[in-house]
Amino acid sequence: MVRMSYDPAVELARLRESIDARDVELVRVLASRFELTRKVGELKARYDLPAKDPAREAEHLEHLRGIAMEARLDPEFVTGVFDAVMAQVVLNHQQFRF
Amino acid sequence: MVRMSYDPAVELARLRESIDARDVELVRVLASRFELTRKVGELKARYDLPAKDPAREAEHLEHLRGIAMEARLDPEFVTGVFDAVMAQVVLNHQQFRF
Repeated sequence: MVRMSYDPAVELARLRESIDARDVELVRVLASRFELTRKVGELKARYDLPAKDPAREAEHLEHLRGIAMEARLDPEFVTGVFDAVMAQVVLNHQQFRF
Repeated sequence: MVRMSYDPAVELARLRESIDARDVELVRVLASRFELTRKVGELKARYDLPAKDPAREAEHLEHLRGIAMEARLDPEFVTGVFDAVMAQVVLNHQQFRF
């Protein structure tokens, strides 16, 4: 059996590669999410559907914060990201005039 | 063949469900990313490895902005998200005293 010696620089490069892959995944999920909100915007404009359900949204955010905490992710950070996402949704709706 | 009539409210509910699922995915990817940066922090502290490679990071961000644009996602928004992620990484490193 050949035993390789442990090289922390190689391990670091491996970790960074994994982080970069997560970032690409993050961008793809965000893009997919905005594609869906675009469809929601079109649907609402076409059929004059009710705009928002704040109670449902608050419940959803609590659910996400719970998942974050379980995964050792700061729930305040998650709330910040989703505030930014919501602001971007509003901006997109203005830009595309849904 | 039974043809169901199109109900925009049902379609809206379906889209919202897909958005919620994307959000859960987003939180999971973020949590996984921070788990990896925690490992990077530990490794750097233990082996006194070089802290950052700004040129590599800038190139990586350009790559992500390119993916965003292809997917109709505002690259400025992506930059903002990654600025927030980087700030959180610094905060985590302080909290956990890597």
